[in-house]
Order: sequence, then C-alpha cells, then structure tokens
Amino acid sequence: MAHNTKVTADSNAPAVTRMLAEFVATHPSHGWDAQVEREAHRTFGNWLGCAIGASRHATLEAALAAVRELSPAPQASLLGRAERVDVASAALLNGIASHTFDFDDTHLRTIIHPAGPVASAALALAEHRGASGRELVDALVLGVDVACRVGNAIYPDHYDRGWHITGSTGMLGAAAACARLLKLDAGATAMALGIAASQPIGVREQFGTMTKPFHPGGAARAGLMAALMARHGYTASPRALEAPRGLMQTFSTKCDWNEIGDALGRRFEIASNTYKPFACGIVIHPSIDGCVQLRDEHALGADDVERVELRVHPLVLELTGKKAPRSGLEGKFSVYHACAAGIVFGAAGEAEFADAMVTRPDVVALRERVTATADDAIAEEAADVTVVCRDGRRLHRFVAHAIGSLERPMSDADLERKFHALVDPVLGAERARQLVALCAGLGGAASVAALAAAARP
Amino acid sequence: MAHNTKVTADSNAPAVTRMLAEFVATHPSHGWDAQVEREAHRTFGNWLGCAIGASRHATLEAALAAVRELSPAPQASLLGRAERVDVASAALLNGIASHTFDFDDTHLRTIIHPAGPVASAALALAEHRGASGRELVDALVLGVDVACRVGNAIYPDHYDRGWHITGSTGMLGAAAACARLLKLDAGATAMALGIAASQPIGVREQFGTMTKPFHPGGAARAGLMAALMARHGYTASPRALEAPRGLMQTFSTKCDWNEIGDALGRRFEIASNTYKPFACGIVIHPSIDGCVQLRDEHALGADDVERVELRVHPLVLELTGKKAPRSGLEGKFSVYHACAAGIVFGAAGEAEFADAMVTRPDVVALRERVTATADDAIAEEAADVTVVCRDGRRLHRFVAHAIGSLERPMSDADLERKFHALVDPVLGAERARQLVALCAGLGGAASVAALAAAARP
Repeated sequence: MAHNTKVTADSNAPAVTRMLAEFVATHPSHGWDAQVEREAHRTFGNWLGCAIGASRHATLEAALAAVRELSPAPQASLLGRAERVDVASAALLNGIASHTFDFDDTHLRTIIHPAGPVASAALALAEHRGASGRELVDALVLGVDVACRVGNAIYPDHYDRGWHITGSTGMLGAAAACARLLKLDAGATAMALGIAASQPIGVREQFGTMTKPFHPGGAARAGLMAALMARHGYTASPRALEAPRGLMQTFSTKCDWNEIGDALGRRFEIASNTYKPFACGIVIHPSIDGCVQLRDEHALGADDVERVELRVHPLVLELTGKKAPRSGLEGKFSVYHACAAGIVFGAAGEAEFADAMVTRPDVVALRERVTATADDAIAEEAADVTVVCRDGRRLHRFVAHAIGSLERPMSDADLERKFHALVDPVLGAERARQLVALCAGLGGAASVAALAAAARP
Repeated sequence: MAHNTKVTADSNAPAVTRMLAEFVATHPSHGWDAQVEREAHRTFGNWLGCAIGASRHATLEAALAAVRELSPAPQASLLGRAERVDVASAALLNGIASHTFDFDDTHLRTIIHPAGPVASAALALAEHRGASGRELVDALVLGVDVACRVGNAIYPDHYDRGWHITGSTGMLGAAAACARLLKLDAGATAMALGIAASQPIGVREQFGTMTKPFHPGGAARAGLMAALMARHGYTASPRALEAPRGLMQTFSTKCDWNEIGDALGRRFEIASNTYKPFACGIVIHPSIDGCVQLRDEHALGADDVERVELRVHPLVLELTGKKAPRSGLEGKFSVYHACAAGIVFGAAGEAEFADAMVTRPDVVALRERVTATADDAIAEEAADVTVVCRDGRRLHRFVAHAIGSLERPMSDADLERKFHALVDPVLGAERARQLVALCAGLGGAASVAALAAAARP
C-alpha cells in the first residue's frame, strides 16, 4: 500500500512544548499588570455564572447520570492485579496494560490494534453488569468491526498525517461494544458513536513513550463513557462521522465511504486479526523473522556476524529508525536493536526489550553493525535480510510474510505458549492454564465473573 | 481574517453513523461463521495475556497512581448543585455546564472559549487540594495563555478543517493550569502538556447538540488527568506539540510557531478575553446587536416589521444558518431566530433560546421574514442590518463591533447583571451577591473553599 511522505512536515519546528512548560512552571505568581488581573477575575466570574446557570439543564443531568454509574468503585477488575476500580478506570488501565508491551493484536490492513480499546471497554462493562460470555464476544466482534471499518475508510492518509489510528478509531469500537452490552437501540447507539466521534486519541510522535499505550486505554474509556452518556439521553450529531465537519472528513483526506457498508454483517474484520510473535511494532517483524531464521539455520552467534544488511519498506525506518535506544521501550522503535536481539537470543519477546537489554554490550555492539536501507520496492510486510559473516559467507533471506501474518498465522499452540510467557510470571502457570480454558469457553460462559476473578492474583 | 471553504468537504456522504449503529444494535448474537468466532476468542485471549503480562509495569503503576487520586469521591463541587464528585468528574461536569448556554467567554482572535476547559479543571483541583485563590488565578491566567497561544498558531486553518478549537486546544490549557496548581517542574509540566496533546476534543458537526458543551468539559477532564499522570511519572514526547507527527502538524496545516513565544510572559491572552451579552455563538452577535438597537431606537414591534435584511460574513451562515430550528439549542445556531428574538424581546439571553421560544408563533413568523446574505466584504465582527417596515421605512444600522467585543466591552456592571440573571434562579439573589464578592476577592483569598461552598445550594 502507498504511504505518502507528508510534504508539510516541518522537522525543524522550535521546541514549543518545552517553552510553554518552562513558562507555566516558572513564571512568577501575579507576574502581570492590573488589566490582566482584572480580566482574570472577570473571566472567572463569568464562567462561574454560566456554569451555575446551566446546572439544572438536561445536558448536565444526562452527563451526571453517566458519571454516577462509576460509583461506588470498585466495580471492575484490573487484570493481573488485586485492585478493583470503577468501570471507566478499568477500561483505561486495562487498555494501557494491554498495549504496554506492543505485543497485542493487529488488523494488518490498517495496523489498528483493535482489542486494546474494544476488549478493555467491553470486559470492564461486562464484568460490572454481570453480562454473559456470549454478550461479551458479540460486543467484541461488533466493536472491532466498527473500528476497523472506519479504519479501512481512512487508511493510510489518516495515519500518514500523524494519527495513531488505534486510538483515533478505537473509541468508536469501544462505544459500539459498550452500546451493544447496554442493549441500546440503533438511535442511542448512533448517539454513543457520535459522542465518541469527538474524542479521537493519539498522535504518532508519542511512540516510544508511555503515552502510546495510553491511546488504546484512553479510547476504551472514552467509548465506554460515550455509551453510558448515550444511555442517559446525552445527544450528539447523528451524522457525527460523515458530515463535512464530522470526524472523518476533519481528520482524514481519504474517506472511502464504501468501506463502511461493504459486506457489512457478512465479512467481519476480526476474522483477519493477527497476533504478534515479537513484542514490538509489526513493521519490523519481517526483519526480525529473517534474522532469527538465518541464526537458527546456521547456528550463528553474535561473534560470527560481521554485519547485517536490511532492505526494508520506507515506513520501517520512519517508525522504528532509532539508532541508539536508551530504554527497552525505545528499543521497540529500533529495527537495529530488534534484529541484534533476534540474532543474539533467537527471540524478541518482552524480555529482549527489557531496559537492561538495550545497554548490554554484546547487543549494543551488534546493533551498531546493523544497517537498514529504505527501498520502495520492498513491500511493507516483507524484508530483505543479508547477514555478512566474519568468515566471508553472505547469508540471505527474503521474508515475504513474517510469522504472525495472515499468510503465516500463529497457531493456537503458539498463542498458548505466548500467553504462558506473559502470564506465568504474574499469576503462575496453574492460573494461566485456568485462564486459557476460560478464554476458550468464553462464548458459552453464563457470566464473565469467573474469568475476571481468575485474572486477579 | 480569511476563512477558506474546505474544498474536500463532501456534503453527500452516506449516513454511515446510522448504518453502523443499526448494525451494532440489531445484528443477531453469534451471527457469523466458526472462523470469526474462533478469531474472536484468539483475539480476546491474546489481549488478556498482554494485559496481565504488563500489569506490574511502570506504565501501569503511574497511570493507576493517577486514577487512585480520584478516590474516595466526593472531592469537588458541582457548581449550582448539592452533589460533590471526584475531581476529574467535577472538571468534566462543570466544563459541560459552563458551555451549555453558549454564554461563556471568547478569545476573539481564535474564537476559543478558554474558561470552560481551564477554569473547570483548575477550580476542581484547587478545591480538592486546598489551594489559595492566588494559586487558582495564576493557574487560570497561565492555562488560558497556553490554550490561546496554541490557538493563535493554528487558527483559522485548524478551525476551518472542522475542529471545535475550544476543546482541541483546551486540554492543553487545562493541563497547564493543573500542572501549575500541582507545582510540577518544567520537565513534568512538559509531560503533562504532552499527555494532553494526544487528546484533542471536538468536531464542529456537533454544534447544536449536547456534545458541543461536552468539548470544554472533556478537555478539562483530559488536561487535569494529564497533569495528575505526569505528577506520577507518566511520560510523553517532550516534542508532542511541535514534532512532525506531533499534535499541531497533525491537526493543522498552519503552524505559526512564532505565536507561541511572541512576548511570552509579557502579553497575556486573557487580557483580550471577552464576554457574551447574548446566549449564542459570537458570530451572530453583531446581527442581534443591530436588530436590538433599531428596535429600541424606533420602538419597533414584530408587527411593524415587513422584513429584516442582513448582510453578514460567510462564516455566519456556515455556523448559524439553521432556517427552522426545532429546539432552543438549535435556535442558537439560527441567525434568523436570534434576530427575530432580538426584535420581539430586545434581548437574546438564555430565556430567548428556551425550547418554547423557537416555536412561538410570533417569533416563528418573524424569523421567516429574516433574510441573510453572505458577503465577503463584511468583516466577521460586523453586520449590516436593514429593517424594512410595513409603513415603508428602511431603517439601517451598520454594526462594526457588537456589544461584548474588545472595542465595546461589557462593563463590570453589565457582567454583574448577567451573573445575577444566570445565578439568581438557581441559588437566589442573596447567594449570588455573595458569590460576586467572593469572585472579586479571589486573588487575595486564602482558600477557594468558601467560594466552592457558596456555589452549592
């Protein structure tokens, strides 16, 4: 698929974030003249009058009714932890957790990670309301469909522009899933989608920071609250997605409306969901896969390798071009580190992206011998990997589709191994086995309560 | 100032919001094949493993620490109401209330309504933390400055594209105000701004629905939470605003970086804040003002008026061109209704935008005799008003600047009258007088507690 280089991007913009932060943190108290001080008081008084004046309005009653549903906490589980919190905070925090390792699912056509926003909102609400497993699975399928269909309509322009599409479509998926769980009718569901449409979350500049996993979490929370507000009569535009000043035309130049209705109810986007074998962005999986394959087939160690030469789609360097990552999180945005880890360890799970890994001398030394060249002729899902050995051999592997892709999917056994690697250290192997069984039987479970309870220590 | 007509706007987009809502609300449970069902279970299990695996990560600890600050509710007041709620919900709900009547303040250069997001977040946090009035006023001035300076840099392109700039810059102002109240240093303040930068709120299609006032409320909540998260070590990009895939380049073509630092700390944007005499969008104020002036000077009644001819800036019709509003809220987006009310009642306060007003036969009959012509030669802040009387007189008034503008500001006495009109019906005149005095003395108050308490019945 084509990715435009954004012609208006200005890499030399001054550091205005820092400038404003310094100003806010250090400007002296009352450091202005009397006119500013007077206007501050007039501003405050006028605001106060407006807020009190509208305090009994139907708008407030509807929003307050939704907020009241969050109380009393605790209402829903934090996965892997003993705490329970209000249902909206559970959606937020489980959404953050699920994307923290960059190890979650991917709808490859749009590179949306749909479960983060959708499942996080749906499980929290399902647990709180005593929903059945069937209701949860239905909500998940439909919510993922909504997020990914909107994604299909706007990708890649929307993503190229700078949006982190997981968070900027995920709030619609979360709203849809929660509307379904709340049994809202079509009109109220349209309001839920509409309220959510004013809350797209996430820009790509955040990649490599904690705010990246905030995006699916924030989207889960926003969608859940949108559904609760719609349930209590809060209104939005019924054309919030498609109108000229609606969400889609506002945040994307490309709006292929046909994608929304194409085989709706017959083709489900979740059927083409994929799962990551490596704990990092999907775009570097083919490169890692090639390195791991060559390592395993030729029993290579780091000392055998003179250098690694990658030819990759330009997006790989745009997203994961960090040459010298300083933390494990930054390591996930470094094709150099990921490939070095692949050769040293034969794996690129969460352990290989620990902070200590990106400063390990043997990994650092090898990553400095990895070169990557952007090549428009290489597809986004492919990579051309050459390992030049110290003994003069040139080992070559062209990876058309990485393990974990639609063409080479993870098997159920692969997924179970991955689940244990993630969950055993937190809850133990016995509990992890129990959770695997509960997940497998989810669609037939009378309630999601047992699963939510088993996910706590 | 120039407003571009968005060339890509597609007014004939299909009703995809409704299409997706119908689908979500009515598709049968388990209405798909075995492959979809299997993938739904794999998606859920993979998501669950990822969330449990990361449940002890520093990212989660920081986010959870921020969420924990919301408990136990009640922490902060809902203005005009007896309830107290958690501090983030108070920011949300007071922000919604303050913009519900469209009667709040306006930074005319950007048409940002800055107090909604900034004051709503700042008062809730100040009340919860026992801050002084001085600290609150400082936070308000600095927060408004941040929101409006970013607005200056991106207006009008950003707004023309479809964003409701109050909510899409307000979360930065709210984050700045709350960072200041929390006494964050410059580094942590930059993180607060960065976390907020992933949460712009609001598209203009929502105008006329409850989701419009949600925008400042949601921005207040998002900014407050961003500051709390930054306080607990949550990270974002330190170039979240200005980087090529940061917020500003992602959501605006125009990014005039010089606006951010221009006379920073010397010129304060709150000094050019204005207050509305009429309970509706600022763009129709000159038209209403002209009608009210002609009515009062010539003692006109509706029956005297054959027709009203307006010539206005094109934006007036784009924003407030509803010919036949069906509710008071829609009436605020109808220059026709607003001018009819101005002539019938000599006023356009909240009462003149009640639901009953837009169906009153005399008002409806008059509004159908109001014509409005877009004219590029008329400035946005001006209007050319002609009342053609049944007796043949043509009464003309060109309004260069409406009452409430910087050139013709509301006096303190005007603001006090407006405050009483809003607050007396909710809290009584005595309490309203008390609040006027507390607002006037805010900068010297040892605590904001008395003011917050007085704002509750």
